[in-house]
Amino acid sequence: MFLRRVLSWKCLGWRGFKQGRSISGRRLDLRGIYPPIVTPFNQKGQVDYQQLESNVQELSKIPFRGLVVQGSNGEFVFLTSEERVEVVRRVRQVLPEEKLLVAGSGCESTEATIVMTRNMAEAGAAAVMVITPCYYRGRMNSTAFIEHYTQVADASPVPVVLYSVPGNTALELPMDAILTLAQHPNIIGLKDSGNNITRIALIVHKTRNQDFQVLAGSAGYLLAAYSVGAVGGVCALANILGEPLCNLEKLCVGGQWEEARELQYRLIEPNTAVTQKFGIAALKEAMGWFGYYGGLCRAPLLPLTEAERKDLRNNFASNGWL
Amino acid sequence: MFLRRVLSWKCLGWRGFKQGRSISGRRLDLRGIYPPIVTPFNQKGQVDYQQLESNVQELSKIPFRGLVVQGSNGEFVFLTSEERVEVVRRVRQVLPEEKLLVAGSGCESTEATIVMTRNMAEAGAAAVMVITPCYYRGRMNSTAFIEHYTQVADASPVPVVLYSVPGNTALELPMDAILTLAQHPNIIGLKDSGNNITRIALIVHKTRNQDFQVLAGSAGYLLAAYSVGAVGGVCALANILGEPLCNLEKLCVGGQWEEARELQYRLIEPNTAVTQKFGIAALKEAMGWFGYYGGLCRAPLLPLTEAERKDLRNNFASNGWL
Amino acid sequence: MFLRRVLSWKCLGWRGFKQGRSISGRRLDLRGIYPPIVTPFNQKGQVDYQQLESNVQELSKIPFRGLVVQGSNGEFVFLTSEERVEVVRRVRQVLPEEKLLVAGSGCESTEATIVMTRNMAEAGAAAVMVITPCYYRGRMNSTAFIEHYTQVADASPVPVVLYSVPGNTALELPMDAILTLAQHPNIIGLKDSGNNITRIALIVHKTRNQDFQVLAGSAGYLLAAYSVGAVGGVCALANILGEPLCNLEKLCVGGQWEEARELQYRLIEPNTAVTQKFGIAALKEAMGWFGYYGGLCRAPLLPLTEAERKDLRNNFASNGWL
Amino acid sequence: MFLRRVLSWKCLGWRGFKQGRSISGRRLDLRGIYPPIVTPFNQKGQVDYQQLESNVQELSKIPFRGLVVQGSNGEFVFLTSEERVEVVRRVRQVLPEEKLLVAGSGCESTEATIVMTRNMAEAGAAAVMVITPCYYRGRMNSTAFIEHYTQVADASPVPVVLYSVPGNTALELPMDAILTLAQHPNIIGLKDSGNNITRIALIVHKTRNQDFQVLAGSAGYLLAAYSVGAVGGVCALANILGEPLCNLEKLCVGGQWEEARELQYRLIEPNTAVTQKFGIAALKEAMGWFGYYGGLCRAPLLPLTEAERKDLRNNFASNGWL
Repeated sequence: MFLRRVLSWKCLGWRGFKQGRSISGRRLDLRGIYPPIVTPFNQKGQVDYQQLESNVQELSKIPFRGLVVQGSNGEFVFLTSEERVEVVRRVRQVLPEEKLLVAGSGCESTEATIVMTRNMAEAGAAAVMVITPCYYRGRMNSTAFIEHYTQVADASPVPVVLYSVPGNTALELPMDAILTLAQHPNIIGLKDSGNNITRIALIVHKTRNQDFQVLAGSAGYLLAAYSVGAVGGVCALANILGEPLCNLEKLCVGGQWEEARELQYRLIEPNTAVTQKFGIAALKEAMGWFGYYGGLCRAPLLPLTEAERKDLRNNFASNGWL
Repeated sequence: MFLRRVLSWKCLGWRGFKQGRSISGRRLDLRGIYPPIVTPFNQKGQVDYQQLESNVQELSKIPFRGLVVQGSNGEFVFLTSEERVEVVRRVRQVLPEEKLLVAGSGCESTEATIVMTRNMAEAGAAAVMVITPCYYRGRMNSTAFIEHYTQVADASPVPVVLYSVPGNTALELPMDAILTLAQHPNIIGLKDSGNNITRIALIVHKTRNQDFQVLAGSAGYLLAAYSVGAVGGVCALANILGEPLCNLEKLCVGGQWEEARELQYRLIEPNTAVTQKFGIAALKEAMGWFGYYGGLCRAPLLPLTEAERKDLRNNFASNGWL
Repeated sequence: MFLRRVLSWKCLGWRGFKQGRSISGRRLDLRGIYPPIVTPFNQKGQVDYQQLESNVQELSKIPFRGLVVQGSNGEFVFLTSEERVEVVRRVRQVLPEEKLLVAGSGCESTEATIVMTRNMAEAGAAAVMVITPCYYRGRMNSTAFIEHYTQVADASPVPVVLYSVPGNTALELPMDAILTLAQHPNIIGLKDSGNNITRIALIVHKTRNQDFQVLAGSAGYLLAAYSVGAVGGVCALANILGEPLCNLEKLCVGGQWEEARELQYRLIEPNTAVTQKFGIAALKEAMGWFGYYGGLCRAPLLPLTEAERKDLRNNFASNGWL
Repeated sequence: MFLRRVLSWKCLGWRGFKQGRSISGRRLDLRGIYPPIVTPFNQKGQVDYQQLESNVQELSKIPFRGLVVQGSNGEFVFLTSEERVEVVRRVRQVLPEEKLLVAGSGCESTEATIVMTRNMAEAGAAAVMVITPCYYRGRMNSTAFIEHYTQVADASPVPVVLYSVPGNTALELPMDAILTLAQHPNIIGLKDSGNNITRIALIVHKTRNQDFQVLAGSAGYLLAAYSVGAVGGVCALANILGEPLCNLEKLCVGGQWEEARELQYRLIEPNTAVTQKFGIAALKEAMGWFGYYGGLCRAPLLPLTEAERKDLRNNFASNGWL
């Protein structure tokens, strides 16, 4: 099941892909839970590398598969190119070797994405997660996405994970593009944050011959995603409730669905609170309650109001987490 | 767990609800699979009651919990009030007694919905499923929905199931309205066709003290819905692949998730084809392939083109159903 | 310019259209302003025909081109078929002969729309305005719309006006369907409530050989619609501020754009308040302030809250209307 | 009418704004037409400064008010920070002194926007146009936008123009934020590309005491925007049909609405073709037909297919431009 169908690949006419890494046999195994870590800033708004490292050290104690650096919760759109790469480098330095570092390397242009991808690989990323370009949304059809991701994957020294996050980009990577791209030897999976479980199930179903790995993009539907064949999750909430999420993973993988369900229920409201409802400012606020450093977001993201903070707190407390 | 919290209900100040039926003890048990049956028409576009009865007799051989008459797939918006009631009456006459008949009685106005609800109860409906009014969408906030459904449930001789189907109404019954309405003694559940598994999970979680039953509104995410606590499904595809869907139910209820998953995978594409992709015309077309009478839809719904028919067929064939 | 291209019509193969009325020469002239009148209800929720007639008599004093009976503001989705026809009959009885009565006759099914159209023509409608069916939105493509409207127009004894109102239906009649339908001899115009002035301009431009008349569906962009070639407007606000809207018409038609603009400005907020913002309940409320009978809406439309009423009042007062 | 209400400003408590430029008297006059110029690339995908300068020289012969550099058509999201500034510098060098250079300086973060704004002012921009941050759309409420733009405007050495372009950002700068920001002495106007003429009219109406200037963001509704008080337009199509657009301006400003309308009609389809329908690749393609250098876009924007090219050509030809 895990062998690449190299021949069929060649027949499909993909261009000049020669990296040994993925073709040589099994793909990089993505199974597990990942917090998409935040980027801490100091009072002046500079990246606070010390707090970053301290957070990574704390997170390393939890049985995550690894970390996602510069997913949407990393405020990557607020970082300079240099900061983006430096954050990856610093995380890699303190992250235990056995933990995967998946770095978000997507930019609007294909060329910038390739450059960023290479820099992040060099800085220590084991894989890159590449968000869909979205600014010219009217022209981002399947053909454009296939071309974009193929060029990136051809050029990338490390495996590529597709990243569809309609909550931020207001578009969805089309199903047919995903199915085509799943055949590329250097594209190993998808993080899907679209809250569409039918779509996730169908992607798993239609890519089963490609050893293509789907990660749920949210803790809100992690159990459901496992139930239809996802292999893990990249969950903002894992920055706060990492242990419970790894427990949920274990219960799902172990087929203990009843207990998994009870745990899943209690995670939905806290998750919604730190994502759709109040966003990264809430994620950082709540991190402080659980022993991590959150701090402020870069502008234009505002701090929570007092009412929001109270509401946020209640979402954790009423589900037994505080 | 199944006892109604009558006292808390009274404290909440609901108005004048006196039906014995639901307060007396357990609510009507909705667990199971339901085909939302189609309305067959003859060549002149009249309701073909003979074919209707014949279909019901065929469907009665399958271990469904019951039938939904005049869900969205019943073309209810194309029927006169008299036809709507007569269809219910005829179905009840041929449907085995142990099968539930849930009738869609929703109209745009509260008053018309109450009248239709009473007529359908009289015609033999064991429960009614009430769609969200949607024409004045700009004003259909939670307050309006709570008022509407409360009046309907107060007046209804039979239990009421809420019905949220954004694919048709382009709006969603808000979560907070659902949570409030779940406390009404004559509102026993929700059919949710919105393909949002996080929402379904949260509704189950937040209504667990209300004995409130959630039905998945589509075969596409039936397994996932079960995984988070739904008690059944109202699935267009059950008009065609009723046996497999009842098998899927059994596997989910029995905790055989691995086998359930394999079956679920094969149902997604046929389901999408007879719903979002090609709609009722496709559902009726495919019914013909499986021994039921489908026939034409009323205008303005068009018959399938030859290309669509071929594509439809392929969706069943490639998943091993033809 | 106003002659129908009958020959090209025949060449296009339209079916059996034989009414003399429209083919005989010029089309029915729609130019001018129309209030889409409300349906008054008494305390019991019954249609209050006396108040209806009284309102019509008042409105008849204003230089409108006519009235639209059972547009979206007429709560037509809350009326029985009999009420819909009876309201038209009553309005026709009191409306001065020279005023056009345009009746909304659209239903979800083609057949029901045809029956309603004939009944309304018999009840005295000079033309019918036919809303887009929308419940099966996923299948309402251009082909379906063209087929639907062609059948209705073929069967209608009176001219047909297309009606696109995305605010209620959550869909838009596609441009290509409009351009095709504009060639039908019995389809004489479009009421477009979509607030898309580029679209209105393009429709005027592309139908100039068809003597096709576009009416703005809102007072909010009436001037702009005139500026690109619309011939009038069906405006909820005309139920309240009929005189100013007829003044605006006169200024636009007379080319006095500077004065027109000043007047237009003052109408936007009141218009928004009685449409998107607060809907028909606000329209009826404000009618009371200006000497008409408004009264309550049928449920599920709720009366205004006190805060809403105050806000509504301010929208009129701050623009100099109270 | 053009005097700033400085006192009321102070009363509102805005922070530390001390630039002499705008407070000293009249605001920068934005009236007129602007092409948002494209960024030409050579075969290697590098910015082709020679072609850029050549285009600017050609465009300078047309009676534009100025140029917008790095609006959405400038592919600014595909440029490095250095390229963005350098393009502005080069344009300024060849642009005749009397022409305004308005530079798009928006970035996702407030800080990056401030830095870019200062760099562009230094490179010669007379004003900056600042797009709405959109990535964290769930948190970009009015408060966040007001804070963002106030900080930018406070820090900017040149006047700021707000820029709302839902076609790219999938969000709209809220009306109430605009009305508040219009009071800032260094925020002089808005480019609105949202195709909502009612909104444009209301903004003009509600800001008339602030000397706030609204520019239409598209040639498709330029006449209509003028009719309700816009002072000009930033129009992609002006890169190709600059002369006709300046004629349209003249006709509108001169009150020759009949002739303006005829001209407006012919511009809609070409405009739609180079914007929503086919995007920048089409804009660049058509530029070649009219004596400018277009060339290729950066990836992931694809070149037109042959069928698209033909369709594009037809949109110009059928309206008499080819």
